[in-house]
Amino acid sequence: MLECIDLSKKLKKKEAKELLDRLDAKVARLQREAKACGIPVMIIFEGWGASGKGTLINRLIQPMDPRGFKVYTIQKENEEEAMRPFLWRFWTKTPAKGRMHLFDRSWYNRVLKDRMDGRVSKEQLMNAYNEIVSFEEQLSVDGTLIIKFFLHISKKEQKKRFEKLEASEETRWRVTAEDWKHNKQYDEYVGVYEDMMEKTDTDFAPWTIIEATDREYASAKILATVSDMLEAKIKEVNTAKAIPAAEEAKPDEPETTFRTSVLDGVDLSKSLSKDVYKKKLDELQTKLSKMHSELYRRRIPVVLAFEGWDAGGKGGAIKRLTARLDPRGYEVIPTASPNDIEKAHHYLWRFWNNMPKAGHIAIFDRTWYGRVMVERIEGFCTKAEWQRAYKEINQMEEHLANAGTVIIKFWMHIDKDEQERRFKERMENPEKQWKITDEDWRNREKWPQYEEAVNEMIVRTSTPHAPWVIVEGNSKYYARVKVLQTVVDALEERLK
Amino acid sequence: MLECIDLSKKLKKKEAKELLDRLDAKVARLQREAKACGIPVMIIFEGWGASGKGTLINRLIQPMDPRGFKVYTIQKENEEEAMRPFLWRFWTKTPAKGRMHLFDRSWYNRVLKDRMDGRVSKEQLMNAYNEIVSFEEQLSVDGTLIIKFFLHISKKEQKKRFEKLEASEETRWRVTAEDWKHNKQYDEYVGVYEDMMEKTDTDFAPWTIIEATDREYASAKILATVSDMLEAKIKEVNTAKAIPAAEEAKPDEPETTFRTSVLDGVDLSKSLSKDVYKKKLDELQTKLSKMHSELYRRRIPVVLAFEGWDAGGKGGAIKRLTARLDPRGYEVIPTASPNDIEKAHHYLWRFWNNMPKAGHIAIFDRTWYGRVMVERIEGFCTKAEWQRAYKEINQMEEHLANAGTVIIKFWMHIDKDEQERRFKERMENPEKQWKITDEDWRNREKWPQYEEAVNEMIVRTSTPHAPWVIVEGNSKYYARVKVLQTVVDALEERLK
Repeated sequence: MLECIDLSKKLKKKEAKELLDRLDAKVARLQREAKACGIPVMIIFEGWGASGKGTLINRLIQPMDPRGFKVYTIQKENEEEAMRPFLWRFWTKTPAKGRMHLFDRSWYNRVLKDRMDGRVSKEQLMNAYNEIVSFEEQLSVDGTLIIKFFLHISKKEQKKRFEKLEASEETRWRVTAEDWKHNKQYDEYVGVYEDMMEKTDTDFAPWTIIEATDREYASAKILATVSDMLEAKIKEVNTAKAIPAAEEAKPDEPETTFRTSVLDGVDLSKSLSKDVYKKKLDELQTKLSKMHSELYRRRIPVVLAFEGWDAGGKGGAIKRLTARLDPRGYEVIPTASPNDIEKAHHYLWRFWNNMPKAGHIAIFDRTWYGRVMVERIEGFCTKAEWQRAYKEINQMEEHLANAGTVIIKFWMHIDKDEQERRFKERMENPEKQWKITDEDWRNREKWPQYEEAVNEMIVRTSTPHAPWVIVEGNSKYYARVKVLQTVVDALEERLK
Repeated sequence: MLECIDLSKKLKKKEAKELLDRLDAKVARLQREAKACGIPVMIIFEGWGASGKGTLINRLIQPMDPRGFKVYTIQKENEEEAMRPFLWRFWTKTPAKGRMHLFDRSWYNRVLKDRMDGRVSKEQLMNAYNEIVSFEEQLSVDGTLIIKFFLHISKKEQKKRFEKLEASEETRWRVTAEDWKHNKQYDEYVGVYEDMMEKTDTDFAPWTIIEATDREYASAKILATVSDMLEAKIKEVNTAKAIPAAEEAKPDEPETTFRTSVLDGVDLSKSLSKDVYKKKLDELQTKLSKMHSELYRRRIPVVLAFEGWDAGGKGGAIKRLTARLDPRGYEVIPTASPNDIEKAHHYLWRFWNNMPKAGHIAIFDRTWYGRVMVERIEGFCTKAEWQRAYKEINQMEEHLANAGTVIIKFWMHIDKDEQERRFKERMENPEKQWKITDEDWRNREKWPQYEEAVNEMIVRTSTPHAPWVIVEGNSKYYARVKVLQTVVDALEERLK
């Protein structure tokens, strides 16, 4: 998921100045209010080397009253610390009421550096995740506000920054051999970071990804996030004081929104000639058909989930995918609106019912992600329900993965113009007219809401064991080949 | 913890009849109401072989409308089921709105039989616990009421029942070689059951232990629990309908209370002569002193926690424990009321600060358990706070254990008469007068409340990695030797 995030975001000079000035004033005020309310605050900075943690922490504290906060830079454990549970040194650093503690790196070292350096066994890693989640839950339920930032830059950007630091005599010492090693290991770290964010992204201590290429943009997003979260927490505390039972009080919509986007960066101009398409298709279908028997023999279950814009090409891709598969070994499960019996159960129940047995492939044409798209946008479920669905869905997919399932999720992406073209084509073609309804046109009007929901969905549910693959769909040939290629590659990897 | 539970509870014939009749009528009514409210209900029965699961399920459904429930007997997975994630067959068996599903054994097989038979690796076991908790959480947050019973009988009682079944031709077939194997493995199973209950005892799906020696008592406790939990859930649903924001609505105190007790069965007549005491003391202190160096050398941290009635003998026991230890290697941490700085932090913060480093012993004279005793009883924290403290404390102790810490918790137990004798003795002895205050006499008046809190505390926080040891304290000699012996045994086990 981290690879898909659009890292090109920046602010214009003048816009930045005004925005930052306003946010500075707001954060300064909110810091005082949080102190008066006795709210303990922990702000954690994790992210790539050279992503600017130090600079951005300095920028964040600039407007603040220095008597109210303390910055901890977390290095390797000292001897005293190494002799205790790894969270000990963080328990002892939890803020008192009304204090704010900022962490430049944190307890997440345990599941990052320690893990990458092989100092943590598989069992210790699982323990560490459980311990981190309960640590944050215990503090949070006790009233602590926990804000977690992940500063994200690309491999190329990181390399560029290291080189720039090395070019100057003054800063050369800051780039170590280890830094270069990390740059080489970038792709491995992506998996480790994604794992970390999936396992520890909770209602009470969510992660915020900061696109850190542009310093101004990153500063503004950090200030805006801190501002929004402080404001919401202060409101919660004040409401609780006034009306003890009003637990559900939700903060206003944030005034400043810096959305993480994965769709903005997608290159929809990708295409394939008919000749190449036919050749590739034939080659991949043959490969897949052979693998299918091998999957069956080795009892590996496979889940392929298809989502995408209306007319995004789901049906066509599924057709090409299954063309040469043995029908006894796969099933296509179309997902319509839930019927009465389905409505009487948990929304995941009907999907659990259809999960494949070992050795079989289940292909879902639309999926459980309806919860965080159509149900969210149409108000078919409450805000609390779709908000907790990300976690529930991640859990379900993890349970499947624990049982050995290969899971791939496709987002069939086209732009609005292409959709219009396809809608019209369908209306004009008598054989395709059944594919298009008034509802499709109505959904189309909600394109921006869907865009927002899809961005959030992909960021929050892309996991190492169940990744989202965004398929550039303006060219049907390109899209179908990409789907097949992705499946073939993933299965090859598993069958190795 | 299971070993300490008082299993001798029974009901008198006449009392039982009246009570069961009343509970039957109530459960019948509540079942109808729950159906009308559209509440899905899952009732799980786990427990020892021959603890009466079948009989007790039959007894529970007796008053119910048979159109409203369904009983599942969970055997070994069939082939279809074995080819899917282990929870799949339970997801497909979740009740629709207004339905009640009862389970004779359940998804807990995975962490019980499968575990004991070596079919589950350590990693799979941890996954299984996580998956079970999220399964129950997802259903519960969606509105399902989950009631979990653990039917408890002693090893002796189980043996007796097997023998009785074998004695009759008609029932002989019901006792298998495997049953006898389980009876032999009783003590191992205790650890496995305790682990299960600790890891899966949640606010949303708590375990209820049923003392199942006496059938009448067990039936009544089951009916009363189902009745209380249905009533609370119905009230919650109705309240939510009437006033959408009233999340905090707590059920009334249950009208029928069947408390699990660990203190009732304690034999306080145990004692030791002075000669034996002196000999034992000398022997154990010498042993402990040697082990202390070995602990240090092998960097094992040790936490010894002392709780108990006022004048229960904590001080005396700690004194004998430390008499020949190297003072550089241990620390006694007395716990008074929290000061202002401590009050400004999470209640566990001050204890985390004092956790021992590897190779050291920390002895706590009163502990974090104050949260669920004095703070609960005196109202120094809210009900929600002390109720969630069990989980938080279990988590903290698990984190310590994950880091290799040996943890033992002592409850220094005396009866009320003995306490009075000791209080008076202290008042009459000028050198001991400082030990007794007005507060001690006031606390004494709350003996029944404390008794209830202590019973609940020991049941809910006794874990394989941090067990409670109840010390029969009327005889000081006996108590001190038991404390030393327990520590020596536990350390010997670890140093093996």
